[in-house]
Amino acid sequence: MKIIVDAFGGDNAPLEILRGCRRAADKLGVSVVLAGPEDEIKACAKENKLSLEGMEILHAASIFQMEYEPVTILREHNDTSMAAGLKALAGQGCDASYDAFVSAGSTGALLVGATLVVKRIRGVRRAAIAAVMPTGERPFVLLDAGANSECTAEMLGHFALLGSTYARHVLGTQNPRVALVNNGTEENKGGPLQQEAYALLKAKANINFIGNIEAREIPLGGCDVAIADGFTGNVILKLYEGMGKLFMGGLKGLFLGSPMGWLAALPAAPGLLKLKKQMDYKEYGGAPLLGINGVVIKAHGSSDAKAIFHAIRQAKACVEGGIVESIKEGLKA
Amino acid sequence: MKIIVDAFGGDNAPLEILRGCRRAADKLGVSVVLAGPEDEIKACAKENKLSLEGMEILHAASIFQMEYEPVTILREHNDTSMAAGLKALAGQGCDASYDAFVSAGSTGALLVGATLVVKRIRGVRRAAIAAVMPTGERPFVLLDAGANSECTAEMLGHFALLGSTYARHVLGTQNPRVALVNNGTEENKGGPLQQEAYALLKAKANINFIGNIEAREIPLGGCDVAIADGFTGNVILKLYEGMGKLFMGGLKGLFLGSPMGWLAALPAAPGLLKLKKQMDYKEYGGAPLLGINGVVIKAHGSSDAKAIFHAIRQAKACVEGGIVESIKEGLKA
Repeated sequence: MKIIVDAFGGDNAPLEILRGCRRAADKLGVSVVLAGPEDEIKACAKENKLSLEGMEILHAASIFQMEYEPVTILREHNDTSMAAGLKALAGQGCDASYDAFVSAGSTGALLVGATLVVKRIRGVRRAAIAAVMPTGERPFVLLDAGANSECTAEMLGHFALLGSTYARHVLGTQNPRVALVNNGTEENKGGPLQQEAYALLKAKANINFIGNIEAREIPLGGCDVAIADGFTGNVILKLYEGMGKLFMGGLKGLFLGSPMGWLAALPAAPGLLKLKKQMDYKEYGGAPLLGINGVVIKAHGSSDAKAIFHAIRQAKACVEGGIVESIKEGLKA
Repeated sequence: MKIIVDAFGGDNAPLEILRGCRRAADKLGVSVVLAGPEDEIKACAKENKLSLEGMEILHAASIFQMEYEPVTILREHNDTSMAAGLKALAGQGCDASYDAFVSAGSTGALLVGATLVVKRIRGVRRAAIAAVMPTGERPFVLLDAGANSECTAEMLGHFALLGSTYARHVLGTQNPRVALVNNGTEENKGGPLQQEAYALLKAKANINFIGNIEAREIPLGGCDVAIADGFTGNVILKLYEGMGKLFMGGLKGLFLGSPMGWLAALPAAPGLLKLKKQMDYKEYGGAPLLGINGVVIKAHGSSDAKAIFHAIRQAKACVEGGIVESIKEGLKA
């Protein structure tokens, strides 16, 4: 399996990306292909004594900067590591065949590029960003986490199929419970979008729609797939992250704030580490762009080596789970 | 100061309500007026050996049940404790004068009733539910937390004034930072509602508008007043609650899950209690209905005595802070 990684996406590129790729190449049994300026990749690896053994380089002359407009990716910035990775995944301009692309770069550009180059699966109106997030029990998938600020009920219907397929085939959740994020559980809750989407989801035979969910129940494991428009989904994703930071900060202060703190932390250490691990977004990989005709993973912009490693692990799981084929089959049904 | 409390609102009425009122009457120097069926209030107090000394009873024949349609409050359910409290606050059918009303009953009915009976402040198009919520530092106000699923930019502009006035006059925040919840910080982010509201808020001279805020920054203390439509605000409010439960549950499991747990908890206990207190919505009182021409506080439906006590404390702070008059002055400016 060949997974292309954008060596120049995100705040900590290229060093942390290369470190994550090294770990993935060593531990996951996948071939990692580094997209970016060849000289810089080699110089960074050399300087940091990182071996590139077993990894290919997909040369690209430049880097897509965060301040660029997403829509320019295939015009002015067609020679960037992100554009090169997407084109290679789509089989453009190369003989080799690749299985997935991972980038911690601009979300907007990745979405535009993936849609235009790798293209959408036939029958999907818009691709969605699917975020895999923790609960007290097993993780759940939230989509759309921010690709489409404004959505139609039909789009939410597609998202339900995409998310359900991901939960089943990649996370291994049996008969995933799909819920619509709403301001109450009753059928008539929400605005016209939610009411129309409710009726549509209820009528779908190939998903396990359990009705509306209030945001309170999401972190407590109330559903396996949470469906929302991209604006609401983005608020949920980011609030999750902020609340995690707040609590982890509070926990840290708890133990380090007093002279007895270290003493207190000692017996609690295994549990603390478990809680921290459970709440750490880096453990969950990135956010797959679902609805795209190929495996494309958006890693968090501030990804370090661990986050990149898990995003590559997730890409591998998507390929092995046959996510793209499964979505195609689901759309036919 | 006379504060009317709906003795029959919420999941734990009437006993927990009476207990909270007893504590408030003893500790806050306010006169508590209990709205509800007089016989039942007296019977509950007697059975539980609770003194009603110094408290008045505002008799109402029946109780507004959660399953009733909110709009029926002034028609079929005009004789309920909630309707009686609102009418007394508005000075209808009584000679006495009251300063505030607190209820843990149906949010929808309280909003409809307050709007029709106590009425809106002239110039305010729609009242908003303002939730006071914790951050790592001082609390912030979120509005609208659920009164209006669909909003116009003009409404969001009013909410900014309402929330800003509350933060200044009740929470004591100097020059409160008002932010618009959005999916990015740039001016052009969000849909038409956010873009229009941004322009409107930027042009307002009497609020300290700091621009868009991403949900990630809210719990970290990024603003003092968070403005959102009622759908988004409701998602934020409820996710806050759910995340709090998740973390507190995790923390509990941490210490109680192992034989060494109790030992670990001992030195950390003061810090743990502080963190728990900081995250406990009950400490923050209820949610004032801002824009109403009187002080009306919606307490959490599952309020216990502590939550009711804090909601009464908050009602007192609203009266003392002259919130209604301050909003009127702000609207004139």
